[in-house]
Amino acid sequence: MDLRRDALELHQKYRGKLSVEVKVPVESKEDLSLVYSPGVAEPCKEIHENEDAIYDYTIRGNLVGVVTNGTAVLGLGDIGAGASYPVMEGKAALFKLFADVDAFPICIDRKDPDAFIDAVKALETTFGGINLEDISAPNCFYIEEKLKNDLQIPVFHDDQHGTAIVTAAGLINALKVVQKKLEHVKVIINGAGAAGIAVVKLLVNMGVGEIILCDSKGAIYEGRHYRMNPLKEEVAAMTNETRVTGELSEVLEEADVFIGVSVAGAFTKEMVASMNRDPVIFAMANPIPEIMPEEAEKAGVAVMGTGRSDFPNQINNVLAFPGIFKGALSVSAKEINEEMKVAAVEAIASLVDHERLSKDYVIPDPLDDRVVDQVSRAVADAAIQSGVARKTKMTDKVEVKR
Amino acid sequence: MDLRRDALELHQKYRGKLSVEVKVPVESKEDLSLVYSPGVAEPCKEIHENEDAIYDYTIRGNLVGVVTNGTAVLGLGDIGAGASYPVMEGKAALFKLFADVDAFPICIDRKDPDAFIDAVKALETTFGGINLEDISAPNCFYIEEKLKNDLQIPVFHDDQHGTAIVTAAGLINALKVVQKKLEHVKVIINGAGAAGIAVVKLLVNMGVGEIILCDSKGAIYEGRHYRMNPLKEEVAAMTNETRVTGELSEVLEEADVFIGVSVAGAFTKEMVASMNRDPVIFAMANPIPEIMPEEAEKAGVAVMGTGRSDFPNQINNVLAFPGIFKGALSVSAKEINEEMKVAAVEAIASLVDHERLSKDYVIPDPLDDRVVDQVSRAVADAAIQSGVARKTKMTDKVEVKR
Repeated sequence: MDLRRDALELHQKYRGKLSVEVKVPVESKEDLSLVYSPGVAEPCKEIHENEDAIYDYTIRGNLVGVVTNGTAVLGLGDIGAGASYPVMEGKAALFKLFADVDAFPICIDRKDPDAFIDAVKALETTFGGINLEDISAPNCFYIEEKLKNDLQIPVFHDDQHGTAIVTAAGLINALKVVQKKLEHVKVIINGAGAAGIAVVKLLVNMGVGEIILCDSKGAIYEGRHYRMNPLKEEVAAMTNETRVTGELSEVLEEADVFIGVSVAGAFTKEMVASMNRDPVIFAMANPIPEIMPEEAEKAGVAVMGTGRSDFPNQINNVLAFPGIFKGALSVSAKEINEEMKVAAVEAIASLVDHERLSKDYVIPDPLDDRVVDQVSRAVADAAIQSGVARKTKMTDKVEVKR
Repeated sequence: MDLRRDALELHQKYRGKLSVEVKVPVESKEDLSLVYSPGVAEPCKEIHENEDAIYDYTIRGNLVGVVTNGTAVLGLGDIGAGASYPVMEGKAALFKLFADVDAFPICIDRKDPDAFIDAVKALETTFGGINLEDISAPNCFYIEEKLKNDLQIPVFHDDQHGTAIVTAAGLINALKVVQKKLEHVKVIINGAGAAGIAVVKLLVNMGVGEIILCDSKGAIYEGRHYRMNPLKEEVAAMTNETRVTGELSEVLEEADVFIGVSVAGAFTKEMVASMNRDPVIFAMANPIPEIMPEEAEKAGVAVMGTGRSDFPNQINNVLAFPGIFKGALSVSAKEINEEMKVAAVEAIASLVDHERLSKDYVIPDPLDDRVVDQVSRAVADAAIQSGVARKTKMTDKVEVKR
C-alpha cells in the first residue's frame, strides 16, 4: 500500500468523500409536489408557528457542522481553510460511518477569531450542533467559549474534549488494573495545547487527586511569570497546589500517571523509572508517541496507551464524538455540558468488562460497535437530567430510503 | 391525496429530505486510513500547494450552497430563516434529482443585508457555487451584486435569473409560433420584484424591440417620481424609450407579449383583447396565474404559458438552475455571466424541435431528461469561451459508490 498514491487516487476518483443524497422516495410528480412546491409550504408553516418543529421536519435534527478555520490541521499546522477541506470531509464521513449522524464540512477562511465566531453564529439555524475542528490554541478556547455562550445548539471542540473524554475513560480502567484510586493518584500532563488543557479540566472535574500540567518550560504553577496565557493561569489556579516548579523530569516523583499530548520523544525510560510504582502512561503524540511502548515496557510501565492502532489501548477520539453528538442530537440538546461529558467517559469506560480488563485492554476498540449506542444513550440521559434537552426522550432512528 | 397531511407526514417520517452520505468505499482499516488520518493529509498538502486542486480532491467541485435569509419564501413571505428550511432542503433535493449536483441548505438568520453578505462570504471556501433563494426585493439585488463582485465562485439568485432564463426561452419559441421577430416585438412585463427586473434585463440584453415594465402603480419610465428605487431607475433608463405612462391596461396597445410575474387576477380578458394580433401571454403568478388559460383563450390569446404543471407550457425554473450550475461546476467556473445565461436560454429553447413546436409546446417539459445535459454543456462551453472557467473541459461524471 502506497499511502500517498492511494489517498490521492481515492480523493480524485470520487472528487471528495461525501455526497448529499435525497433520502425520501421521489418517483412521481405527486412525490415532487410534497418534496417541493406546493407541499413544502406545510412544514414551513408549522415551523413558523413553533420553531422547535424544525427538529422534526428538517435534516437539522440530525445534522452536525464540522467547522474549521484550518489553523491547526492534523500534524500539518496552519495550512488554511481550503487545504483543511479533506480532513473536514473525512471527519464528517466518520460521523456518518460510526453514528449515522449527518455531518457537513464548513471551511471558513477567517483567522481573526471574532470574524470566525460571527461566521459560525450565522450558521446556527442550519445545524443541530457544531463540531469545531483543527483550530489552533489559544484562539480555540476563546472561540469555543464565546460560541457556547451565544448559541442555543451544542458546540464541541473535539480536539479538546474528545481527547479528554477518551483519555479519562482509559484512565479509569487503567487505575483499576493497577488498583489505585482516582482521588489518590498524581497525574502529570505534558502539553498545554487544546487537548492538554481540556484533559486537565475534565480530570479536575472528576476529582483526580493531584494534577500538574507541564508545557515545554516545565510545570505550570500559580505565580509563574514566563510563557503564561489566560488558560494556563486558569489551570495554575486549579492544579499544582504546592506550586511545584521545574522541568518535566523534575516533577515526576511520586507520579502515578503520565499523559502526553505533546511531541514525539518527550518522555524517556529514565522518566518512567522515576515515577511511582506501577506507572500508567498514555503517550498520545501522533504519529510517533512521546515514548514508544517497547521502551516504556523495558522501564517498567504497568499500563501503556497511545494514539495508534498498531499498539494496544488506542486512545482514539472516534470513541467519543460520534456517540456524544448522536446522543445530544437525539434529544435536540441545547449544549454539551459537563454532565454529558462525564456520562460519556463513564459509558466508554464501562464497555470494558471486568473480566476482560487487563493492562492491554483498558479502552474499547474504536471499531467496537457497542460504543456509539452506549455513549449516545448515556449522553442523551444526561442531557435530559441536566435540563438541556428540548425533547424528553430519544428520537427514534431516522428512516432513510436505501 | 391530502397535500397538507401527506407533506407533514413525509417530512416528519424522514426528518427532512436530505442525508449526507459517504460516497467512497469504507470496508477496512486501510480504507479508513485513506479517508481520514493519516492518508487524508496527502490531498491537504496538494491543495496547500495549489489551491485549485480543491476542485479535484473535495466535494467542493460539485457542491452548491442553497442560501437564504427566509425573507421571501414561496407565497409565504418573510417567515424567517428557520421556517424556510424545508424549502431550501427541497431545492437542494431538486439539484440532486435533476442534475446529480450535491447541494446543501444554508439558512442564515440575518435580515440586515450586510450581515447576510458577510455570512455568505465566509462560506466561499466551502462551496463551488451559491444559489441565492427566497430573498426579498430590493435587498436581493444589492446582496447578489455585492456577492458576485466579492466572490470567486458563481453566485446566482434563482428567483431572478432562473425565471428570466426560462421565460426568455419560452418567448423565443412562442414568437416562432406567431411568426414575429424578437427585435420587433413590444413586451409588457407586470411585476417589478426580483423576477420582473431580471426578465427585463435579460430581454434587453437579447435585443427585444420594446419593453415596458409595470408595477402596481403602472408603467415605469424615466422621470417617474413615485415609488421608485435604484433598480426601477435602472430599468427606466434602459426601457420605455418614449416614456409611456399610465396603468397596465393603458400601456397594452400594440403589445405583442405580456409577461406576468405579479399576482392572481392582475390580467383580464379585456386586456388580452386590447393587445396586438396573436398575443403571447406568460402568466406566472403562483399558484393562480394573472389570468386563467381558459379566460385568455376566449379573448384570443395565441400562445399561453403559466407556472403550473396542469396547463401546457409550464415556465418552470427547474428547466434552468440544475443545468446551469452543473455546467458552471463542471468547469469550476468563477461566475455565471451573461454569456452563460444566454447560452442556457438558447439551449432550453432549442430542445423544442421545429416539427413539434406548437402553441401548446413552446417550452420543454420539466421532466424532459435531455434538458440538464444540453443546458450544462452549453453553459460550460460559454464559461470556457468567456474566460471564466478554471478548467478547459468539462469534468467527467463523478463516481459514487451506490
